[in-house]
Amino acid sequence: MAVKQQTAVTPTREENFAEWYQEVIKVADLAEHSAVRGCMIIKPWGYGLWEGVQRILGKMIKDTGHQNVYFPLLIPLSFLEKEAQHVEGFAKECAVVTHYRLEADGKGKLVPSPDAELAEPFIIRPTSETIVGTAMAKWVQSYNDLPVLINQWCNVMRWEMRTRLFLRTAEFLWQEGHTAHATPAEAVEETMQMLDVYERFAVDYLAIPVIKGEKTPGERFPGAVNTYTIEAMMQDGKALQAGTSHFLGQNFSKAYDIKFADQSQQLQHVWTTSWGVSTRIIGALIMTHSDDDGLVLPPKIASEQIVLIPVAANDEDMARVLDYCNDLAKELKKIRYDDELIRVTVDKSNRRGGEKFWNAVKKGIPVRVEIGRREIESGMLAVSRRDKAAKDKASIKREDFVANIGSLFDEIQNHLLTRARKFRDDHTHEISSVAELEKMFSNTEDSVNGFALAYFDPAIEHDAQVADKLKELKLTARCMPFGHQEQEGVCIFSGKKTKSKIIFARAY
Amino acid sequence: MAVKQQTAVTPTREENFAEWYQEVIKVADLAEHSAVRGCMIIKPWGYGLWEGVQRILGKMIKDTGHQNVYFPLLIPLSFLEKEAQHVEGFAKECAVVTHYRLEADGKGKLVPSPDAELAEPFIIRPTSETIVGTAMAKWVQSYNDLPVLINQWCNVMRWEMRTRLFLRTAEFLWQEGHTAHATPAEAVEETMQMLDVYERFAVDYLAIPVIKGEKTPGERFPGAVNTYTIEAMMQDGKALQAGTSHFLGQNFSKAYDIKFADQSQQLQHVWTTSWGVSTRIIGALIMTHSDDDGLVLPPKIASEQIVLIPVAANDEDMARVLDYCNDLAKELKKIRYDDELIRVTVDKSNRRGGEKFWNAVKKGIPVRVEIGRREIESGMLAVSRRDKAAKDKASIKREDFVANIGSLFDEIQNHLLTRARKFRDDHTHEISSVAELEKMFSNTEDSVNGFALAYFDPAIEHDAQVADKLKELKLTARCMPFGHQEQEGVCIFSGKKTKSKIIFARAY
Repeated sequence: MAVKQQTAVTPTREENFAEWYQEVIKVADLAEHSAVRGCMIIKPWGYGLWEGVQRILGKMIKDTGHQNVYFPLLIPLSFLEKEAQHVEGFAKECAVVTHYRLEADGKGKLVPSPDAELAEPFIIRPTSETIVGTAMAKWVQSYNDLPVLINQWCNVMRWEMRTRLFLRTAEFLWQEGHTAHATPAEAVEETMQMLDVYERFAVDYLAIPVIKGEKTPGERFPGAVNTYTIEAMMQDGKALQAGTSHFLGQNFSKAYDIKFADQSQQLQHVWTTSWGVSTRIIGALIMTHSDDDGLVLPPKIASEQIVLIPVAANDEDMARVLDYCNDLAKELKKIRYDDELIRVTVDKSNRRGGEKFWNAVKKGIPVRVEIGRREIESGMLAVSRRDKAAKDKASIKREDFVANIGSLFDEIQNHLLTRARKFRDDHTHEISSVAELEKMFSNTEDSVNGFALAYFDPAIEHDAQVADKLKELKLTARCMPFGHQEQEGVCIFSGKKTKSKIIFARAY
Repeated sequence: MAVKQQTAVTPTREENFAEWYQEVIKVADLAEHSAVRGCMIIKPWGYGLWEGVQRILGKMIKDTGHQNVYFPLLIPLSFLEKEAQHVEGFAKECAVVTHYRLEADGKGKLVPSPDAELAEPFIIRPTSETIVGTAMAKWVQSYNDLPVLINQWCNVMRWEMRTRLFLRTAEFLWQEGHTAHATPAEAVEETMQMLDVYERFAVDYLAIPVIKGEKTPGERFPGAVNTYTIEAMMQDGKALQAGTSHFLGQNFSKAYDIKFADQSQQLQHVWTTSWGVSTRIIGALIMTHSDDDGLVLPPKIASEQIVLIPVAANDEDMARVLDYCNDLAKELKKIRYDDELIRVTVDKSNRRGGEKFWNAVKKGIPVRVEIGRREIESGMLAVSRRDKAAKDKASIKREDFVANIGSLFDEIQNHLLTRARKFRDDHTHEISSVAELEKMFSNTEDSVNGFALAYFDPAIEHDAQVADKLKELKLTARCMPFGHQEQEGVCIFSGKKTKSKIIFARAY
């Protein structure tokens, strides 16, 4: 019988993936549940990741010509009522503000003041198409006012009943882009451009391989003509929708009366898009790379890329080691990687050496360097990579370490991406019958099932027989992946010919 | 009779300061009222200023050892009830969430679903001491866990009845810092450190001269032991509180039970602070520097520091001029000023030359450079500074302009600060009797009254006679300015000796 290896996180991924996920968040000190049901407190180490998303994705959004704005948190009910599908999609999970004052109830408690009831209640924005659309109707008069290309970073609220840190919370943080265009072609181009930006961000920065595709009609954003998605596979084989981009056609411009005079002075409704990435992507980051010792971060998104760990037997040694660490840190901080100065810290805490080491492991810091008297004297550093086994240390000359730090980061970044891509490809299977689908997903829920790629006619996704079977297998149609919609095949449910190929998976 | 000078903004500051303010916001396209009462839409040019605040002040907050976090938007009523003064201060202006679902009323309208009423309503945070305190109580166990030094950038809501863009809005954006310490001395030091950070930010970056001081007991933050403020004078002589830092003593740690075991294992309550700067500071920025031609921005906070304005008579010329502009822009963008790459744009719009020029003036871009055939041929640039008269142009050799751009920005930045400081000092008067106070503030509301500095015993600020007189003159005690509390004088109201010297002013 094999001896069970000691891990920093219990349970392991294999033992219980859902609990492992919660535990990684806990040991890395990323976030915690608050006293407000379904709402989380994002702690410094977790918020640092979101700041990374804001910094990097924010720059990509600006570089593609969008400007940041801020719209009100509250939305009048009458705004929501105007787009029928949109109401349908969001009315059931809205936090409603009905009063604007509290008063004492005479028994030591506060109650909403009956004299301060709002004539028209407000909802806390679940998304902002309605209020942005109302403003765009004022802003846009002629073709000269187009395109409108705006984005906001903000909090939104959807009253979810079952919540999980980062993945599904009543309040979450996101960016939502909103654009208006003169022609449908331009709006579609914008929709695709932002999907590409999301893909580039996920792949190049978070090292999360994603599949771009179109959502089936049943999975579209409420009010969209088409919804496009980037889908990622987590280490339990489940899919996670990591970003969406919507072509809204004229649905919102008609509901909110956004019109422009074209070059021949004809009034036309504009064509709009919206697209968003939320704090959910941090959940994807965690579940893509982390292991049984805790969080694993790609260097480009890590708030700390290198930690220098001083190790000394006595105070005198420690002073010398700390000096050395500070000097090395100073040298490293002058180097740029991916256009940003390298982020390096010295662990000056009172923790013992081993604790410092394991703290850095659990927090997912990409590179650890242990420094003691021996390292100073030999000029060699003990370097460990978070993407390799914890005990795996390389002895590297200080000068070489400094000179090659960019390549080391590249190596780690690429290794994480390659490993995740291999995992996904290993767990993606082309299937050609419902029987195969059943077989693939018939094992217990905890094992890795992955993605099933099959011909399927999306027109029948709401047919009772299809819906029941998918429900039974706990599957959803994730997307119609790009590059797979040209050849004809046989729909696994109807037996008819179709060009639509779908990814089925269990999903977050 | 003097000919009235043509201005880009009507009315002028002198004609009607309040309307001028609204008009500057409009012509510079900073923000607008939304359909949600009291809430504003911050447009790209206005949000760019807030991004500048976040970038610069955000770095200063991190450099002083604070880490960013995110707490929930919603706060349970029971949290608010725990600190008596805090309730008193905020209960009357709270937006209250009572339901978590909408339903159709059968008449085509949506109403809060009676089945989805919350057992305990939530308020939208007016500030977060209550929810942060609840979390700190969990986080802090021993002296090793202290200090806690956190900050969040978020939206808050206070249901104001009379709102004005940036200055007073129901929803506003801010940063709120929250810290916990083992000793009162450390907490006071933190409070002062952050007040200094705010002063440095206002003076060095926004070129707003501020007076640091302590608030009188009547003007303290609800629940604070002491509140400190930076007060600025607007061009109508009114005061604007641009940032506050609170020493909360043990008021919140007792209400929320935040305790730690000290080094001798004794349980003690921690000492807390909080401090904030909001979107209001953009109102201060506007009213400190802007003139009758629109917004005036100091280079360090401007989203665009230089605009290159191509001027050409025909398309062929324009192509050549644009090439030249792009080349110059590229050269300038490589230069760093105040640790950031210079922000320069080329106005490629379809506007005519004069319109481009005035657009840049109204938006407050610090440096305008007009470029036409003549400039290209002579190698001389026509450079205008926003802090000087619009017609005031200097002819500068291209190489010299590029080489000296940092000094030019410094000059503008210093000029704005010096001008604002002179204005404030010219309108600050030491007074020694109520009669003098009355005289100073007896002219009409539109003229510049400024700050009155007088000996005053804050213990009597709520006496009916004092309160009535201040109300009659529309004055408030702005602060007890630092550096003026050593010598003894005679209180202008009580006639008794006091060391307290106060600034009285009308205020935003």
